[in-house]
Parts: sequence; C-alpha cells; structure tokens
Amino acid sequence: MSTYVPKGFLFSTVEAAIKKPGRKDLALIYSEKQAVIAGMFTKNRVKAAPVKLDMMRMKSGKGQAIVVNSGNANACTGKQGMKDAAAMTGEIARSLGLKPDKVYACSTGVIGTPMPMDRIMLSMPELINGIGKSTIEDVAAAIMTTDTFPKIVNRKIKVGGKTVIISGVCKGAGMICPNMATMLCFVMTDANIQKSALGTALKEAVKESFNMITVDGDMSTNDMVLIMANGIAGNRLIRKNSSTFKAFASALSEVTYELSKLIIKDGEGSSKLVGIDIRKAKNSVEAQKGAFAVANSLLVKTAIYGNDANCGRMMAALGYSGITIKEEKVDIFLNGLKVVEKGMTTGKDAEANERLKSEEVRIIIDLRLGKGNAKVLTCDLTEDYIKINAEYRT
Amino acid sequence: MSTYVPKGFLFSTVEAAIKKPGRKDLALIYSEKQAVIAGMFTKNRVKAAPVKLDMMRMKSGKGQAIVVNSGNANACTGKQGMKDAAAMTGEIARSLGLKPDKVYACSTGVIGTPMPMDRIMLSMPELINGIGKSTIEDVAAAIMTTDTFPKIVNRKIKVGGKTVIISGVCKGAGMICPNMATMLCFVMTDANIQKSALGTALKEAVKESFNMITVDGDMSTNDMVLIMANGIAGNRLIRKNSSTFKAFASALSEVTYELSKLIIKDGEGSSKLVGIDIRKAKNSVEAQKGAFAVANSLLVKTAIYGNDANCGRMMAALGYSGITIKEEKVDIFLNGLKVVEKGMTTGKDAEANERLKSEEVRIIIDLRLGKGNAKVLTCDLTEDYIKINAEYRT
Repeated sequence: MSTYVPKGFLFSTVEAAIKKPGRKDLALIYSEKQAVIAGMFTKNRVKAAPVKLDMMRMKSGKGQAIVVNSGNANACTGKQGMKDAAAMTGEIARSLGLKPDKVYACSTGVIGTPMPMDRIMLSMPELINGIGKSTIEDVAAAIMTTDTFPKIVNRKIKVGGKTVIISGVCKGAGMICPNMATMLCFVMTDANIQKSALGTALKEAVKESFNMITVDGDMSTNDMVLIMANGIAGNRLIRKNSSTFKAFASALSEVTYELSKLIIKDGEGSSKLVGIDIRKAKNSVEAQKGAFAVANSLLVKTAIYGNDANCGRMMAALGYSGITIKEEKVDIFLNGLKVVEKGMTTGKDAEANERLKSEEVRIIIDLRLGKGNAKVLTCDLTEDYIKINAEYRT
Repeated sequence: MSTYVPKGFLFSTVEAAIKKPGRKDLALIYSEKQAVIAGMFTKNRVKAAPVKLDMMRMKSGKGQAIVVNSGNANACTGKQGMKDAAAMTGEIARSLGLKPDKVYACSTGVIGTPMPMDRIMLSMPELINGIGKSTIEDVAAAIMTTDTFPKIVNRKIKVGGKTVIISGVCKGAGMICPNMATMLCFVMTDANIQKSALGTALKEAVKESFNMITVDGDMSTNDMVLIMANGIAGNRLIRKNSSTFKAFASALSEVTYELSKLIIKDGEGSSKLVGIDIRKAKNSVEAQKGAFAVANSLLVKTAIYGNDANCGRMMAALGYSGITIKEEKVDIFLNGLKVVEKGMTTGKDAEANERLKSEEVRIIIDLRLGKGNAKVLTCDLTEDYIKINAEYRT
C-alpha cells in the first residue's frame, strides 16, 4: 500500500494487550501544529465515555492529538469510564505539553467491560516516545477489531497552487448501521481551512457515505468520525464561500465514500458488496427508508448470498418499510436484468440467479412515483457473520 | 398428539404438487353451519391476493369454508393473482352450494411466482370429495412451509353449562415480525358468539400473542388469522358485555399465545426460545419498542446463540431504539442472574454464560423509569437460519 500523508501528522502505535496480547492496540495521531477539528458522533442514546468526552471537547473547535484503542469500547462503564477516558487523554496532554481538551479519545471493542487502565497507563510512555516511528498503516491496523484488512484512503488536490493532502483511516465490520458517523474514522489534512467550513464539508461527506451503509442494522455506541486540519499546506484559508471549498469538500467526500465502501467490503462474514438503488420514490426520505428496509432484510441478504433472485422478498421489505408504494408500478433490475416489471416477475429467474453469482450486486428498484432517489451500500449475510458474532468475546 | 375439535368442523387435504410433489399442500376447513368470522391481516403494504380478497369478504362477517395452500404465496402476482384466488374459492363455493363470498382463500410460500392453477384446479374434486376424511393434524401439516412440526392448540371451556371448544392451527417459522396477524392461523370454535364480540376477543388475543413475537424482523405479505365460530355448541349467545365473554376471550388468548410460542420454538434454525421482558419503561409503547429492538438485534441474537452474556449489545440496542433510557439506571437479569446493575456490568460473565446454556432464555431489562411493561418472544440466530433462507427456493 503506497500512501502519502498530510504534512505535520505523526503516528505512534504500541501493544497494550487490552483485549489480549499479540498485536498493537493503542494508537496516537499527533499534529505538530494545533489543528481545527470537526466531528460527528453516534446517535445511539447509549454513548461510550470517549464519545461523551469528545463531544464536549469538540466545542473548542481545536485539537492536536487523538488517542485510540481497540479491544474495549469503554461503553456502559459509568463514571469510571469517563475517568478512564480523561486519564488517557490527560497523560498524553501532560507529556506533550498540551491542554487536556486538545486531546481526543476513541475506543472500540467489547462493550460493558471496564478498561484495563493499568496496562494502558503502563504503555503510555512507549506510546509517546514512539511518536513519528509508526506509519498511518500501523494506525489503521491498530484500530481494527473484527476487520480483516486495514482501511486507508488518500486524496491529493491543488488548492490555490498549493498541494493539499487528505488521508482517512477507519475501522468497522459489524454493528454497522446508518445514523451514525461510522465505527471510527479519522481524517487528517494539512489544508488551511476555516473551522465552520470544515464542519460543513464533513457533514456533507458523511451524509452520502457512512450514513448510507449498513451491515447488520445494529448502531454502535462508539461511532465517530473526526477530522483534523492543521493548515501546514500553506494554502490560502478555505472558507465556506471561497472558490476552493468545493474542491476540498469533494475530495473529502471521495475519501469518506471510499472508506465506507471498504467497511462494507469487509462486512462481517460477507461475500458480496450490494448496492440498493431506489429510484423515483415519493421523495428522498422515502427513498432512503425503502432502501434501508431492503438492505437490512435478513431474507433479502440471505437470498443474495444463496444466489437466489428472490424479488418477492424485496417487494415484501418495501411493503413493510412504510413508504408509499404502488405494487403494480414497481420495476426491479438485478445487475442489469429486469426481474420484476409492474410488480410481477418477468420469469427470468434462472438468468437472474446466474447474474447474482458476482462479488458485486447492484439492485435498482424503480418505484415510478416521484423524484426521490437513494443509494445504500450493504453486504450479504452468511454463516460466517453468525460464527464471528456468536464467538466474539471468546 | 391428542386433539378434540369443535363440533361441526370438517377437514380435507390433498396433494396438488404446488411447489413440488411429495406432500399434501392444499387444505380445506369446512363448517357444516355458516359461522360468524373475524380476521386480522398483515399491515405490509404489499398484500398477497388472498389477503386482499379475504379483507373484502370479511365485511359480511360470515363464512363457511377456508381453502389454504402452501408452496406459493400468490403475492406480487397482479390481477392474475386475484383471479386465481377467486377461482379457487369459486370452485369450492359452486361444489358446496355456498355463496362465493362465504369462502376464504389463504396462501403461503414463495412470493412472486404465478400460482400453478392447472394443478390446483385438477385437485379440487378430490379436495371436495375428501371433506371429513382428514384430521385437524392433516390441515396443520398441509399448511407448513419451512416449519419443522405442525402447530395445533386446543382449549375446552364451559359457557353457561355448555362445552365450548376452541381449536387453532398455525404455520410460521420465518418472515415473522410484529404488526401482523401471524403467518397463517386458523381458529375454529363451536361457540355461539356475537360477531363483534368475536372480533374484539380476537384483536385482544392477537395483540398479546402474534403481535409480540419476532423471528427475523421481516413482515410477510400473507399473514392473517381467521376465526370461525359456528355456534353448534348451543350455548347462550356470547355478547361483549355478557358474563361469558371473559371466559371465551381468555381461552382464545391462551390458544393464540400458545400458538405464537410454537412459531418461535420453530423459528428457522433457532436453538433457543428467548423472552425479552422490558419493565418500567416510560410507557408501554416505549417498552414494546425497546423490547423489539433488543429482540431483533442480530448481535444480541448471535450472542445468545454463542452462550455469550454480552449485555453491551443489549444496551446498544436499547440506545438506538429511540426510547427514553437513563443508562445509569438500567438493570439486566439473564435467567435470574443480575448481570447489569445501574448500567454497568456486575462482573458475573462466567456464571451468566453458563446460565445461557439453556433452551429457554429469559431476559429482564428494568429501565426504572416509569410504568411501561412489554414482553416479546423471539429466538436466537444460527447458521441454520442462513442456510434455510439462502436455499429456500432451490
């Protein structure tokens, strides 16, 4: 993997044996210069301690370091969890001479187990001394849980003659569902950008990427995406109304979209990447609702896994989604083949089953009602998802 | 299985080879005397042809025969589907000298495939000639799809000195989700009961039984429950305000509750019966919403299958359900053992995992907020569910 990283960002990773020994599970992302920061957080009402902490700290709009651990989510851990998150960031702030509220904490892993703070604190000196000795790939690997590969996406753009780099890493393979910012995603850029412009660009990017994917319909307690922009690229300040904003926002959207696609590709136990495209729904809210109903239907997911073009299950999911639907108007296409016309099968099951034997499946559902469109990415559901999640804590 | 059936009900079953040959798949329930009838139907906006037909016929409040087939749902079959449902009932009405609108049709099986009407119509004479030659067990077997056992529940009560029998049969093992009447359920009684009283009793019974179970969160296009009461028991008419109504309604509730429990016990691929009991939610609507979120969470279901007392997943599901929750107040009990206290683990994971090694799992979640309670029945999620549904049409 050849990667370039934005200027002024340094990394460190260590093995703290948080869940078990044998891999690096504690990472630090450090910007040499204080950065503007923006973030989006899970909408789950049960929020992990680091989510709560970061939401408070986010108000300052500034940040310089992010400490992340995998193996323990620090969720459902009460007041002690808040103390633990604060202790992790406090130790880093002290060592680096930063104000504590410029350090952000993120955790991912088992929910409801107290953080092994003794082992984490013992690893802190090594983590801090290691700054600059790890790569972005090491960070992407250290934050993995059930992920099978590290997830990194980069973009290089020109902003007013200056080169700006945007690099994102994320993790996530299960407990993936919309209305959150994703499992964990960190984006770094050396762009010089106004805080509010950064927030707007992030919101737009997440809306079309992390908020449009689902693996299993389970929304996590720990999801967040953070972006730090340290300005070292030296470009003229990007403002919301400046001509350079669009280029930056669109590059950021590409980064988050590609990352969200990697999450689905790595969906727990999945064998296929599935795009559900709803067209001409009554409106875009209904399009999205219908697409997620089809994407989250266990019966649709298992049929796709079994190479069975069982469109009746899609029709049923559309029907219970609560959106407006005229059965006699619905057309459905599977990888380009029309399988349902005006609500009825076209009788091409055998050919449709053949077309499903592909690693990428695209389902277009045309409701022929209004102007609402939505596209959701998901994956199929296999025996391996069950195995992974039945045995997750063992 | 020793069963008694209400007086005046006769049965017939034949093999029409609707999906494939080798089993009886067409059944007729016939009442010697015209009965009052009540029904509840799927809330799925995509409704099978027989559902639409029966909803119209239900308005008369009367019925004398129900024809049911398995192997084909007659859903997403357009105008032809409506004609086919009408043809099936029309043939029976003609042969038995009944008005067509006194015959009800029900179908269950694959969605989106045209009905093999040639084979069905060829079997009609045998079906009609066979009236009285089959048992209620034969009917319960003929309506099965992925079910692994037939489902019959009976109750005998005294109403004003007369013996009244209530017998119910149902089918269902997948595509099971609330807000419907169940896959298919037929209840017969010889009670003499007012039409509106019958409707009220059915509504109450379904509310606490079929509407409180979920296997996979997928709501079917074909669900319905029908009850016929032919009055042959000769009891004094049961009215909504008569003293005998309560006894009848409570026996009917027992029948539907036991049947709904059988559906969950036979949940596709399931290895455990799981009760989710939410207590002291803000109100009963929130209690129900929270209970279904936990019951439908793939991560909760797979953890239970893996004997993993992963309460963090339950907390996460409660959090994204949208109900009011104060994390620091939540207590959770697994088969009697307190595993979460005030939102935090009690550290008894090993013992809790042991208690999960049981065919029946009862989870009590005490939100300690208000007066809302709800109990949902569900099952775990195993590799076999995936296998069954990946291969359903092959």
